[in-house]
Amino acid sequence: MIEINIPKPSSKLISAINHKIDFKTKPIGALGQLESVARQICLIQQTLAPELKKPSIVVFAGDHGLAKEGVSAFPQEVTHQMVLNFLSGEAAINIFSEQHGIDLKIVDAGVNFDFENHPHLINAKIGMGTENSLTQTAISENQLTQAIQKGCEIVNNIHAKGSNVIGFGEMGIGNSSAASLIMSHICKLPIKDCVGRGTGVDDAGWYKKIEILEKVQQKHSSISSISELLLAVGGFEIAMMTGAMLQAAANQMIVLVDGFISTSAYLCAHSINSNIEHYTLFCHQSDESGHKKMLEFLQVKSIVQMNLRLGEGTGCALAYPLIQSSVDFINKMASFDDAGVSNKD
Amino acid sequence: MIEINIPKPSSKLISAINHKIDFKTKPIGALGQLESVARQICLIQQTLAPELKKPSIVVFAGDHGLAKEGVSAFPQEVTHQMVLNFLSGEAAINIFSEQHGIDLKIVDAGVNFDFENHPHLINAKIGMGTENSLTQTAISENQLTQAIQKGCEIVNNIHAKGSNVIGFGEMGIGNSSAASLIMSHICKLPIKDCVGRGTGVDDAGWYKKIEILEKVQQKHSSISSISELLLAVGGFEIAMMTGAMLQAAANQMIVLVDGFISTSAYLCAHSINSNIEHYTLFCHQSDESGHKKMLEFLQVKSIVQMNLRLGEGTGCALAYPLIQSSVDFINKMASFDDAGVSNKD
Repeated sequence: MIEINIPKPSSKLISAINHKIDFKTKPIGALGQLESVARQICLIQQTLAPELKKPSIVVFAGDHGLAKEGVSAFPQEVTHQMVLNFLSGEAAINIFSEQHGIDLKIVDAGVNFDFENHPHLINAKIGMGTENSLTQTAISENQLTQAIQKGCEIVNNIHAKGSNVIGFGEMGIGNSSAASLIMSHICKLPIKDCVGRGTGVDDAGWYKKIEILEKVQQKHSSISSISELLLAVGGFEIAMMTGAMLQAAANQMIVLVDGFISTSAYLCAHSINSNIEHYTLFCHQSDESGHKKMLEFLQVKSIVQMNLRLGEGTGCALAYPLIQSSVDFINKMASFDDAGVSNKD
Repeated sequence: MIEINIPKPSSKLISAINHKIDFKTKPIGALGQLESVARQICLIQQTLAPELKKPSIVVFAGDHGLAKEGVSAFPQEVTHQMVLNFLSGEAAINIFSEQHGIDLKIVDAGVNFDFENHPHLINAKIGMGTENSLTQTAISENQLTQAIQKGCEIVNNIHAKGSNVIGFGEMGIGNSSAASLIMSHICKLPIKDCVGRGTGVDDAGWYKKIEILEKVQQKHSSISSISELLLAVGGFEIAMMTGAMLQAAANQMIVLVDGFISTSAYLCAHSINSNIEHYTLFCHQSDESGHKKMLEFLQVKSIVQMNLRLGEGTGCALAYPLIQSSVDFINKMASFDDAGVSNKD
């Protein structure tokens, strides 16, 4: 049902890129992961002189019908309250985006609240929260189509304004449950391996969360596609991010994936078109226990590992200066020849 | 022989600091290591509103007599060539310091080359390189005293100009050998566990390096103090960094430790006065194999793990924006009360 064309970057420049990196005034490989990030960005942009333009982070917010089963440590109203907090500019993601000159947009993908207009809020509301996946499919086919389309549109608008690097964050009480269900299906892992503490449930809450999610899986036992998975478990923000990530890669933008929920959307996107992997940087490894296993499943290493578990795109914002460092070293550092430094014997 | 008074920060503010961190609009602990960094900086500065002022990185350069035994993949002249590269502003550390507005100073602690005056070069030359530790002590008592004093002076000058955060990097062909010898002595680990590839020796070079360093240890088998250790193995840059780090902590500055060689100086400093630990942030975990074990010995977690092995203070510069993020979130993020967000049930 969901299809999008993502070009695989040509590898014709790889020798020239490696030569440029290897003849910088440093031992071969001494800049570690900065080198692999630089190499990847050069390939995405098909250049030896990459550039990060108008970095953006988009936070997709949505409510979850499953939240009423008590899967989260926080009440549902926190979703809209946090959206208001983002709009007033004082949440963590605001602070870190401001620090690095990242343009921040908040998307109402389906929050159970009517927001007033705001210059940083994008109204893409699909509904007032998803249905409860314990008793029915979380979203309808029509809603899924809308969510994917809206995600694509939002990214296209940002791309049209000149951005070539975009981070994907989220907010939604209950969405770590949807992410766990997606992970369990795609990574083929039992639900207990996919469930963490979310925003901080205690032991009893954790066992209860596993029990509820196992029941959700039983309810939707015949899933045979990513579309069916998203219909079954939602949420609006995850479906919209899935479309948005695919479109960003189709636009040959650098795709910055945040934590557990952001990566669950990436898992969906990657299942739809694995060429997205060439455009994607995994910004941090979350402290949410399933995230490490997601990254292992994808065979990727994140840029930052600081035991964060906040979402909002905070991992993208925190990793951003390190991505900028990758671009800066390949553009600005002297080569052995430039500097008159003797190379290895 | 080396003594310095470092006050232990008062813990009287700890409850207020924790309260401020815990009531930010995020689940408890959700900013992970940023929270522990923020907490530590608040304690260092004895405030709930910490500030990073005039960040500095100092790169200490020195030559090593042991280099003539072929312990490095690069020839000794690279030390002075890289100093010139630092001064022309195009080495990795220049690029990353510039990115983050960090003031960079290069110290000639004892390079085998006569440099012309330069505004970013501090002349603290103790000699034209150390003696060969395989055949004699690397530095004399008089030189060690001078190196420690110079390190203190350099830091005091930077502190006097208003800096409260200072990173310690280095350059010196052969200095990973001195660092391995220091590590082996202080961490009480066999030399083979302390020796890595440095700037990139191959298998044969690695075995040779171990063999040579074991001989150096046999030559200096009766070391009973940090002073004797530094006299035996050097180098000038490591001894000077040791004094400089101690002085920075005595000045209640934030001490940023870089990679393997920088941490070897820290091991010396910490053995002299363990109160330095309250002031220190470990910026990255180097790909140099011994560094992980050093950090385990110290029971600390670094801020960044990107498989770097360059030195120069590059880990300090790369970690700096994450340290700034720690300070920014505690100063700028809304609390639950400020934002009208419901706290955990």
